[in-house]
Amino acid sequence: MTESDRAVVARSLVQQCLYGRLQVKPPTQDSEAEWVEIQRGMVVYICFFKGATEEIIPKIVSTLLNVKLCETETGRYVSVLDLPGNVLIVPQATLGGTAKGKSMQYHANIGKEEGMQLYASFVAQCEKELSSSSKCTESGVLVKHGTYGNRQVLKLDTNGPYTHLIEF
Amino acid sequence: MTESDRAVVARSLVQQCLYGRLQVKPPTQDSEAEWVEIQRGMVVYICFFKGATEEIIPKIVSTLLNVKLCETETGRYVSVLDLPGNVLIVPQATLGGTAKGKSMQYHANIGKEEGMQLYASFVAQCEKELSSSSKCTESGVLVKHGTYGNRQVLKLDTNGPYTHLIEF
Repeated sequence: MTESDRAVVARSLVQQCLYGRLQVKPPTQDSEAEWVEIQRGMVVYICFFKGATEEIIPKIVSTLLNVKLCETETGRYVSVLDLPGNVLIVPQATLGGTAKGKSMQYHANIGKEEGMQLYASFVAQCEKELSSSSKCTESGVLVKHGTYGNRQVLKLDTNGPYTHLIEF
Repeated sequence: MTESDRAVVARSLVQQCLYGRLQVKPPTQDSEAEWVEIQRGMVVYICFFKGATEEIIPKIVSTLLNVKLCETETGRYVSVLDLPGNVLIVPQATLGGTAKGKSMQYHANIGKEEGMQLYASFVAQCEKELSSSSKCTESGVLVKHGTYGNRQVLKLDTNGPYTHLIEF
């Protein structure tokens, strides 16, 4: 079976931002909402499909962190590791939807437990890559991420989102 | 040839927003930048591929304006026409990209002239649909759109983008 014959196991959407703010804990009666934020960098929305396993995670991480989608001050495009830029990871199961009449169906989406594990691995491996890049550690860029299963209350400020879809 | 056999001719990405602001004219030496903005509604990023023609536009418009992706105050999902909500259309050719090594390629994207015409039709037909909905005209919701070919400087404020990919 060639690469192109197998079903897609993950879908990512990448947008560039100048600033991003994401709620990671909703407000309760006793506490205020909690947020994470990043300055200039990349927002990665990620969704896993049935059939995705840990094996695919390194490829996703490597592709997203090395693809040249980040604009430098001089208008060149480099990877987020090279910029260096921050990374905001947003779990987004809705990306797995398929339009069926006037509704969306999510039959191909991975189960909640498995999805949560893959998401945790993806976040951890992104963090590891950034922390092993001297360029990134010196400039202090960070990986921030949303809470799997939560409503992803998000604010974005961009100089052009330059939206890309990358499937695995 | 069945529907599923033919190549995709358009890719849209839909996000929900509480507020969206998009630059439609960059600043010059003599003038400030011009922006459009919407309150609560739907952001539609749109990209056309080679092979797209005027014939597909009504289907795209009908699908996007009628699919139930907009959340009501009570947490139900309805169409943007039913909400009723505003629509912010963002031309986004980058959505047509394919990862090739560390770069993106856009070989499948439609040519600039054709793309501009299809985009204009898409915008016009969205406007027509909203203006022929009494619910929409009574509530004063609007269609706003970006300038084809420009940098899409965008600010978004969401209560969860609830991102969906819909291809045609």
